[in-house]
Amino acid sequence: MAVERREIDRIDRELLPLFLERMGCVERVGELKRQAGKPVRNAAREQEIIDRVSRQAGEMGQSAAEFYRAIMAISRDREHNLMGGDPDLLELEQRANRELQSPGKVVCQGVRGAYSHQAAERLFPGAEIGFVPEFHEVFREVSEGALGVVPVENSAAGSVTAVYDLILKYRFYIVGAVDIRVEHCLAAAAPGEITRVLSHPQALAQCSELLSREGYETEDYSNTAAAAKAVAESREPGLGVICSEDAARRYGLTILRRGVQNVRNNTTRFVAVSREAVLPVDASKISLCFSLPHTTGSLHSVLRRFAGSGLNLTKIESRPLPGRSFEYDFYLDFTGCIHDPSTLNLICALKAELPRFSFLGNYSELSTEEEI
Amino acid sequence: MAVERREIDRIDRELLPLFLERMGCVERVGELKRQAGKPVRNAAREQEIIDRVSRQAGEMGQSAAEFYRAIMAISRDREHNLMGGDPDLLELEQRANRELQSPGKVVCQGVRGAYSHQAAERLFPGAEIGFVPEFHEVFREVSEGALGVVPVENSAAGSVTAVYDLILKYRFYIVGAVDIRVEHCLAAAAPGEITRVLSHPQALAQCSELLSREGYETEDYSNTAAAAKAVAESREPGLGVICSEDAARRYGLTILRRGVQNVRNNTTRFVAVSREAVLPVDASKISLCFSLPHTTGSLHSVLRRFAGSGLNLTKIESRPLPGRSFEYDFYLDFTGCIHDPSTLNLICALKAELPRFSFLGNYSELSTEEEI
Repeated sequence: MAVERREIDRIDRELLPLFLERMGCVERVGELKRQAGKPVRNAAREQEIIDRVSRQAGEMGQSAAEFYRAIMAISRDREHNLMGGDPDLLELEQRANRELQSPGKVVCQGVRGAYSHQAAERLFPGAEIGFVPEFHEVFREVSEGALGVVPVENSAAGSVTAVYDLILKYRFYIVGAVDIRVEHCLAAAAPGEITRVLSHPQALAQCSELLSREGYETEDYSNTAAAAKAVAESREPGLGVICSEDAARRYGLTILRRGVQNVRNNTTRFVAVSREAVLPVDASKISLCFSLPHTTGSLHSVLRRFAGSGLNLTKIESRPLPGRSFEYDFYLDFTGCIHDPSTLNLICALKAELPRFSFLGNYSELSTEEEI
Repeated sequence: MAVERREIDRIDRELLPLFLERMGCVERVGELKRQAGKPVRNAAREQEIIDRVSRQAGEMGQSAAEFYRAIMAISRDREHNLMGGDPDLLELEQRANRELQSPGKVVCQGVRGAYSHQAAERLFPGAEIGFVPEFHEVFREVSEGALGVVPVENSAAGSVTAVYDLILKYRFYIVGAVDIRVEHCLAAAAPGEITRVLSHPQALAQCSELLSREGYETEDYSNTAAAAKAVAESREPGLGVICSEDAARRYGLTILRRGVQNVRNNTTRFVAVSREAVLPVDASKISLCFSLPHTTGSLHSVLRRFAGSGLNLTKIESRPLPGRSFEYDFYLDFTGCIHDPSTLNLICALKAELPRFSFLGNYSELSTEEEI
């Protein structure tokens, strides 16, 4: 193998100077485009080059096409570095508050002791927390200046997409996030035999193995914490509840069994939502939403930029856009700070190239581990 | 700009033969590795090359590193093409049934008229459909030979991840998929003023704007179709229900308003699950699950393969693995057929390189459009 490796090293010594020379040309083209106010990407010219090299490479055509797609993507990045960035994003980065003002009001959906309440307390320790019965009321309160805390996964009120839809609709910003461990317990007003169990249907479903094994009757309730409250107030013998330990303690119930959900290690992610952008200098996570045409490699070419900039994705989720069969929305989180020039540059480049693009926020994330 | 473009074309004429020569060397190395039973990837050697070119390229270091990462990824693909593939996957591709045997029994969770029921009827027209009260009972029936129909999004019984967890736990296969449009209507036993509305809490939440605007009282029910049945049987004046049109019609209710959910174009995806793999020759969608280390660019390097092979992703979702802060599970769907040698090759290459990898199935997807 040593012979082949020396041969590869020799080829690399010739390849690299050519590549660097090509990048030099690309930078001059980029400067000319900038002066002429032309966009970085010239899809027709790129396709022409790819078609040509595929033809020339014969049975290596697919590999050669990939090789050139990579070269041109790297070239576009260099050009974007010269372009100066998106004025709206540059202004936002400059003008947004660097710190969250002490919140006048924090609002979440549900009742005291719900997982939302735990999340709000973790995110805003000591803040006054208000409760509204409906999900969309949280957003109305935020539009009037409150901070909202909403679940973005595993939630009964909707999947991540419904929350993101609302954030986008209202043009709000994400200003914090926390994972809350969903650990259900079985509790009752007093020790003794259980025959009937109250809870939210999702919590009952999450504990279905226990419930069917024990043959308990079940009754749906609007909310796990509200069910705990009802059980505490009724004191009916044989009546149990599936809720968080926090809710059980809050309503003075006896915990009969812990960790009764079917699946271990279940967490729900909550985000804090604000009308105003807040971009702390030590923020470490960025959320974006964008749509992509359903063409081969379009997502890949976006992710390439993150990999190239050394930024780690921490979440990615796609959603087909109803009624537009070949377009997708993407929700993407990655580690980074918008005040870092290369990260700001990357976000500006994405905004310039993607048909629909929203910067949702840059914030710190509380880890689950801190909670335990 | 013409001068620079001619210059770029001239450089490309020199770059391409070098690249092709390098690929020739790589194929010889691949053949030697295959004979010696060595793995394709040699991460240490790759890093050594990247470090060297980054140094040599000076301020273009990052671009040069990306250039070489791309070259080496393309090289690995060529090598994998020579390796022969994963024996288990090759055997599965050969031995699995090409057609779904006429199903003895199709099982879904819920009651007649539920969205699951609609999905089961679309997937298996004319089949006998059974209903079980709990989600996990569907899986038990499938382990005894039935076909199961389960929601993988927007579901109250759990998010996509809970269903995928169960599919993985039981080592089942996905053998079909369909999107069902979730269009709630407001219905009642007879025309007239409504004061109180029954439904599943998720459906009530999805229609919260209407409900709060009209000031209706609400009452939770285990299931939208079960709520429709209850309203039909009670015939209580002023009692309404939020359910599908299908459920309203099935229980002889009067539809008062259509499309009452807050968000338009809401769909839920259902999959058919089987104990045995079924790999039709005209299957068009492949589902995979795998985990990735949280290193920069690891997802990108997986997606690059799909882009390079001209395969389109139709879904991607990440999930952090609880307790392992730097590892993620990915759920990924893409268009393709395992009987196509290059697609089989790609799947084998992923299985060889990724620490945990599951092939979940290759099936046809019924589109939402067909439904309308």
